[in-house]
Amino acid sequence: MTDKYKEAGVDIDAGIRAVELMKAAVRSTFTPQVLADVGSFGGLFALTDLPPQPVLVASTDGVGTKVKLAAELGRWKGIGHDLVNHCINDILVQNARPLFFLDYIAAARLEPEAVAAAVTGVAEACKAAGCALIGGETAEMPGVYTENAFDMAGTVIGLVDRDALLPQLAEMTVNDAIIGLPSSGPHTNGYSLIRQAIAGRDLEMVLEDGQTLAGALLAPHRCYLSAIDILQQSGFTVKGMAHITGGGIIENLPRILPGHLSARVVTKSWETPPVFRRLVAWSGMNFMEAFRVLNMGIGMVLIVDTAAAEPILDLLPEAIVIGRLVERKNGEAIQLIA
Amino acid sequence: MTDKYKEAGVDIDAGIRAVELMKAAVRSTFTPQVLADVGSFGGLFALTDLPPQPVLVASTDGVGTKVKLAAELGRWKGIGHDLVNHCINDILVQNARPLFFLDYIAAARLEPEAVAAAVTGVAEACKAAGCALIGGETAEMPGVYTENAFDMAGTVIGLVDRDALLPQLAEMTVNDAIIGLPSSGPHTNGYSLIRQAIAGRDLEMVLEDGQTLAGALLAPHRCYLSAIDILQQSGFTVKGMAHITGGGIIENLPRILPGHLSARVVTKSWETPPVFRRLVAWSGMNFMEAFRVLNMGIGMVLIVDTAAAEPILDLLPEAIVIGRLVERKNGEAIQLIA
Repeated sequence: MTDKYKEAGVDIDAGIRAVELMKAAVRSTFTPQVLADVGSFGGLFALTDLPPQPVLVASTDGVGTKVKLAAELGRWKGIGHDLVNHCINDILVQNARPLFFLDYIAAARLEPEAVAAAVTGVAEACKAAGCALIGGETAEMPGVYTENAFDMAGTVIGLVDRDALLPQLAEMTVNDAIIGLPSSGPHTNGYSLIRQAIAGRDLEMVLEDGQTLAGALLAPHRCYLSAIDILQQSGFTVKGMAHITGGGIIENLPRILPGHLSARVVTKSWETPPVFRRLVAWSGMNFMEAFRVLNMGIGMVLIVDTAAAEPILDLLPEAIVIGRLVERKNGEAIQLIA
Repeated sequence: MTDKYKEAGVDIDAGIRAVELMKAAVRSTFTPQVLADVGSFGGLFALTDLPPQPVLVASTDGVGTKVKLAAELGRWKGIGHDLVNHCINDILVQNARPLFFLDYIAAARLEPEAVAAAVTGVAEACKAAGCALIGGETAEMPGVYTENAFDMAGTVIGLVDRDALLPQLAEMTVNDAIIGLPSSGPHTNGYSLIRQAIAGRDLEMVLEDGQTLAGALLAPHRCYLSAIDILQQSGFTVKGMAHITGGGIIENLPRILPGHLSARVVTKSWETPPVFRRLVAWSGMNFMEAFRVLNMGIGMVLIVDTAAAEPILDLLPEAIVIGRLVERKNGEAIQLIA
């Protein structure tokens, strides 16, 4: 690696320092179950303290064209958080807890400092979730990626007992509360449309909530692991969870409902954050398109018993009751009330 | 998805048929341990029949710029085999057996038939290895990938008992045999250089072994799982294995050796396949460069007791003794004898 960068006139010492910091960040994620150190072969993870019916839950995902915006602004670290948190949320909805993570980063030409920043972001997010970063690959692919663009993908492996798997469709009934947990921004969805909507606009403009447009658009994807841990450790039963990703609440919430129930969601229950209002206005999306392309301020949805709703709001001040389950009529799995 | 392709004038019916075939191929990989069907959330894999000290071994990798050549020639399926077999070999060297796999495919614009062919290749290779394909992601990333290029990455999760982990450094001694297993071609390494070396040449030219140049360069990465299964099930002890990937035998074989031993490899032990001789001649690489950039015909290397070498050659007719372990002098971990 060193020779190649020397030829290209890159500051090798800065690159080496960045890589050392990255390696330290990766090592800081290691739990006692990790058997191999950075740079060995495949990552080794000892399975201990298994539940009676252990089930591994695995998910691979990328962060979409948010990487393009991050590359343009040179903000790599947040993308690492996006990648990890998106993947963890994806398995959290099945009630799995993350064990370990692996990442893949590729570009036409890898800048060592950019890679180190991105991987450090991955490591930080893993560490925050108690998830070991046990492997990864970086690839230089001239001719495959456009100049200054890169892509990242990640894989999380989590664990759950078979009896604890969610959703528990048989437990859901009419009047169950639909609780929303706020997103931190568009997370990792809708960025091809977002990039069109912001073309030619000032990314440093300040929005009504005091964030810059760039800051609002690059805010890392929120991880909902700690919120769900708090709920469950306090004895609350979550019957189902939907991670609001591509397809929005319109496509993701119906995926966790039984055929006889429908989600009645009142969108005025929460205040749509300024960045979403701007994006909708600039792009000319209609109401339904907006809730299909963007999360519109709600990143995770929980189904709980109606009696549990109030105490859950006490426990999680950010949580909002956004609707309830009703009998399904006309085959509609979700009704959005403006 | 359908609307988008309709607008672009794509043959939707052909695309749908391709996707249905792909889904059938994916389902055909499912073992009884797979709990979820295609299209659900994260893939679910029940852990059963665990060894006393179960260790998960995980590896993420891509296939390098071989994807560029495959895209140019429209041969997608083989790349799926490359991806899976590369990853399985990577964990096989630690003596792990694959449980399941997840893939990631991204391009500026995804052609449904190309994606279906690539994923079908992934599924075929998984099925051949008894490995379930339980998840994956396809992403359209305009502006990130160049036109007509795509990238694929994959993650394999395997299992091994802690006591069976390889390499077993303490067991290796002077005179242990180094056995090579043939590669099927350059596998997935050296393709940026290979693409330069073949620029302007006729890809349909026929090589001395009857293969076309294109055929030799796109031959899927070999999976060594069945060969190692045969050896171990016949009672042979493998002390260490090295998968000859990026860095060649020069960088990969030393990774599995104890500090006091060196690998003495006689490169005339095997016949270098025609495609490698051509690539070396066209690119002007010297001897050492060739064995660092390319596998030169040997894709997997095993360290075994010297007494086991002959019976192993009887069991695996393709296997070749390519050298032996010697006392390490001058700090050299590998000596290549021309």
